[in-house]
Amino acid sequence: MLDYRAPLRDMQFILDELAGLERIAKLPGCEDASADLVSAVLEEAGKFASGVLAPLNTVGDRQGCRLEGERVIVPDGWQAAYDQFRDAGWIGLSLPPEHGGQGLPKLVSAPVWEMWFSANMAFAMLPQLNVGQTEALMIAASEEQKATWLEKIVSGEWAATMNLTEPQAGSDLAATRMRAEPTDDGAYRLFGQKIFISYGEHELTPNIVHLVLARLPDAPPGIKGLSLFLVPKYLLDAQGDPGQKNDIRCIAIEHKMGIHGSPTCTLSYGDDGGALGYLVGEPHTGLATMFVMMNEARFNVGVQGVALGERAYQAALAYARERVQGRDIVSGEAGKAILAHPDVKRMLVSMRARLMAMRALLYTAAGWFDIARHHPDAEGADKRRRYVDLLMPVAKGWCTEVGNDLCDEAIQVFGGMGFVEETGVAQLFRDARVITIYEGTTGIQANDLLGRKILREDGATLRELIADFRETADQLGRKELGDLAQALHDQANLLDETIDWLLAHKADTAELYAGAVPLLHLLGIACGTWQMARLALAADTRRETGDGDDDYLLGLVELARFYMATQAPQARAHGHTLRQAGGVLTRFLEGEL
Amino acid sequence: MLDYRAPLRDMQFILDELAGLERIAKLPGCEDASADLVSAVLEEAGKFASGVLAPLNTVGDRQGCRLEGERVIVPDGWQAAYDQFRDAGWIGLSLPPEHGGQGLPKLVSAPVWEMWFSANMAFAMLPQLNVGQTEALMIAASEEQKATWLEKIVSGEWAATMNLTEPQAGSDLAATRMRAEPTDDGAYRLFGQKIFISYGEHELTPNIVHLVLARLPDAPPGIKGLSLFLVPKYLLDAQGDPGQKNDIRCIAIEHKMGIHGSPTCTLSYGDDGGALGYLVGEPHTGLATMFVMMNEARFNVGVQGVALGERAYQAALAYARERVQGRDIVSGEAGKAILAHPDVKRMLVSMRARLMAMRALLYTAAGWFDIARHHPDAEGADKRRRYVDLLMPVAKGWCTEVGNDLCDEAIQVFGGMGFVEETGVAQLFRDARVITIYEGTTGIQANDLLGRKILREDGATLRELIADFRETADQLGRKELGDLAQALHDQANLLDETIDWLLAHKADTAELYAGAVPLLHLLGIACGTWQMARLALAADTRRETGDGDDDYLLGLVELARFYMATQAPQARAHGHTLRQAGGVLTRFLEGEL
Repeated sequence: MLDYRAPLRDMQFILDELAGLERIAKLPGCEDASADLVSAVLEEAGKFASGVLAPLNTVGDRQGCRLEGERVIVPDGWQAAYDQFRDAGWIGLSLPPEHGGQGLPKLVSAPVWEMWFSANMAFAMLPQLNVGQTEALMIAASEEQKATWLEKIVSGEWAATMNLTEPQAGSDLAATRMRAEPTDDGAYRLFGQKIFISYGEHELTPNIVHLVLARLPDAPPGIKGLSLFLVPKYLLDAQGDPGQKNDIRCIAIEHKMGIHGSPTCTLSYGDDGGALGYLVGEPHTGLATMFVMMNEARFNVGVQGVALGERAYQAALAYARERVQGRDIVSGEAGKAILAHPDVKRMLVSMRARLMAMRALLYTAAGWFDIARHHPDAEGADKRRRYVDLLMPVAKGWCTEVGNDLCDEAIQVFGGMGFVEETGVAQLFRDARVITIYEGTTGIQANDLLGRKILREDGATLRELIADFRETADQLGRKELGDLAQALHDQANLLDETIDWLLAHKADTAELYAGAVPLLHLLGIACGTWQMARLALAADTRRETGDGDDDYLLGLVELARFYMATQAPQARAHGHTLRQAGGVLTRFLEGEL
Repeated sequence: MLDYRAPLRDMQFILDELAGLERIAKLPGCEDASADLVSAVLEEAGKFASGVLAPLNTVGDRQGCRLEGERVIVPDGWQAAYDQFRDAGWIGLSLPPEHGGQGLPKLVSAPVWEMWFSANMAFAMLPQLNVGQTEALMIAASEEQKATWLEKIVSGEWAATMNLTEPQAGSDLAATRMRAEPTDDGAYRLFGQKIFISYGEHELTPNIVHLVLARLPDAPPGIKGLSLFLVPKYLLDAQGDPGQKNDIRCIAIEHKMGIHGSPTCTLSYGDDGGALGYLVGEPHTGLATMFVMMNEARFNVGVQGVALGERAYQAALAYARERVQGRDIVSGEAGKAILAHPDVKRMLVSMRARLMAMRALLYTAAGWFDIARHHPDAEGADKRRRYVDLLMPVAKGWCTEVGNDLCDEAIQVFGGMGFVEETGVAQLFRDARVITIYEGTTGIQANDLLGRKILREDGATLRELIADFRETADQLGRKELGDLAQALHDQANLLDETIDWLLAHKADTAELYAGAVPLLHLLGIACGTWQMARLALAADTRRETGDGDDDYLLGLVELARFYMATQAPQARAHGHTLRQAGGVLTRFLEGEL
């Protein structure tokens, strides 16, 4: 079984130095996020993650879930852990105080959720749904609905789900068929089947609140005909307590490669007269609500990339320090741990560099979310909202791809022991494989980035971001960090050239979209380079003031250098591919495959 | 369950046009490999792979193996399939005729083994061991030993294993502890434990012949003290039939992430007085024999990379042709299969391009093996032997890394259906994860490439290979394929620069070895570029003569272009990393991790 220790020092450094915790704690509504409180929260979360959730991760993987009739049985220990998690108030950490949450900024909840996902992703997917559903209901629900449902969802007394996918409607929600027919008293009866519903059924809570995309009888076809419904597992009685069972059945659970502890359900609605539900928001606007939630959900999956990568890194580092094998390549000395081998050291430093780049990007983006939501200055808020919109496909698409790579590399460090299940690192690799798929595949993220986020506005926000890159590079240039400045300027130039090329080829739709994923990787690496440059800048500044452990700070500067040496060159390769591949691809006939 | 159809057209094209089947069939000892016979062999093997082995692949994964006492129970269907496989004579395909084999060149057996691995890798690992063991015994066994054992091994009447790994001796065989004590009658008694022994125990055959690395009492320490022993599961009686059970026990089997159908055994030798074994070759020369075998074994694992990638590609292509989702990005038309989406098409073309590059390299190398072994002209034979030696770490390391990438990409094409086990593509992904590990990890291959294959001879053979690259480029330049010529010249230049840099930094051992894996990737892509250039050249020549399906041939030319656009640029990124990463890495303190 793998230990997990929350990387508090790294998290805190990024919060303080890169994501601007101090500044965000001054925003209206964020005043609770004092330095002391935040440190205390992180420390407590770290203890809970290591002590309660992490040890259950293997249990969840080995036992998995099972369907008995219509009952879903989750792994041993899930109930006790959930009760503790709920009672400790973790679910409401960043949720609205008016419904019982603590209202802390997203910048604080981001590292906390990273810990939950590192410790036990299959478990943490359950309370994560409460967060997502709260966001959706805050956007679209009526005041009465909020009063009825939100307190129980925010506290975790009841569980939550999202019901989007149907067999013919995966990435393509336009193909949704689930029907909702109005009843005489203003409610609806739902009929149809949803698949891939995480925690669609279980008995961990006395009720489950499903949010379901469905079509009203008068719905226009396609995505403009989707409405959102709240459909509880148990209808509420006069006292607001769970009463009669609704007409929803779990008819199957998936046998998956990973996240075995999270039941993935097929739910059948309305086999016995219709599942009673309530319209959330206006008719036919369900997808708009979903889209607002989407940034939130995608951000969280990006965090899963860091989280699984971090745990894989910790495991690989521990193994590399303890496993003795071979001789030192320079001294010929025997009896050294494999961390002394240059290739193993390369893998571990590379893992740490990519982790820090991703974490810095995600926490920085979390801060942008907070500024966008709370900043009193409309212009400042708007800029950060645009940054969030632009980079969310990168945060999701790139961090999940890299997260997978890290889990893969951890297995490589373990060698044969990584391929056997007992060491636990194989589970991380299997669990991670879903994150580039759910909440929109990498291809979907890349299309979103290219079309809606760049082409639609002719790259305007991306040009603003590039100006920020150059500002960081200039700051580095004024220190003794000219090599890092140069590497970042290179990335800025590459991005500028890339936008120019995209705009010049705007009409060649198929050709451009063939390069969407290389573009996403390119921008991910460029953002990673920027964040590592910021990290080095902050570390160097702290070194100058003598504030902090000098070895640690110097290590961060060297880590940034390693990132520039190993990751940054790949951005240019992706740029080359972007410009060249689409042309060949459009000529390529499907029959030639 | 996934279908498998042997890619006979692609295989045949590469055999004929790139690997020089016709020329090899003229070598002394290879005369049986007529065009007709080879086609017939490939066709029959394809039928056997699709019809018998492929349907069992899922069974093997779901049932796995189990240990009952000291008995290992393999999946249902394994026995019948093995009986058919053995009776059809497939095991001896390329093995010595004097011991009952058919003696066909490696060039013919390479595509056949690709089929077995595509169809059912976990199963095919069993007969593969007979091939490896035959090679070892041919090198080192006495005539009497050959007469006693080889016929049964070549026919597959008895099974074979390789026993190298011990808990403290994985990549580092110097740490081997297994003891062999001489008996009065010239035999030996072995004591110790071996782990990770594929098919170390089963009841598919009436005997199992173990080849075991162990130390004699007077052995020097380290790798120069290893001797090789033949240790049968059942000692032979006076008639040469399996008689008394030897002192070997299977005490555990591994619970692995993949290849569940292949039992990975811990074998305990000598718990009851010593397992009786026979010295193969001279004392203390076991590792030399192993090293001669290594090229063979590593080559086969490279073939596994292509094989799993091919099956994953076939699955992804079939799914992409049948799964309807979303709208055409240009026309807006609905109801199209996802293959019409540029990103999905990109993934599939990219998979096919990498498959062809790897297959071309491996089959070409198989032809080099044959030339090295059979060519009457010593100089010609020697050149090809040196090429084999140089490129075997690339064939193993790079083809397995790419094979993993292909299985990963296939899951991405399947989306959510790739993460659930029922589609079968997840199994390929899990199975593939071992191939970059066993028979020497990618890091081990890379160190071998850098140290023994390049630095030791100051890059001499690699310079010869680069000259071959340039010759192909010049031939392309004389056709209307100047863009491909340019791309290949670029790779040749990059390799020349790389050798120059390596030689200039020969003294900085730790720094150089930190870049060994990037170097391996660089050379892999460069070789892939060369092979794709050769493919395009051959296809274009065939087009000129009107010999073959023009769409197919044109598709190969475009596939080469796509390879140059998407893979070739990464070689330069790896070169950049090679030159820059080591310096940072050697400064990086382990305490900073």
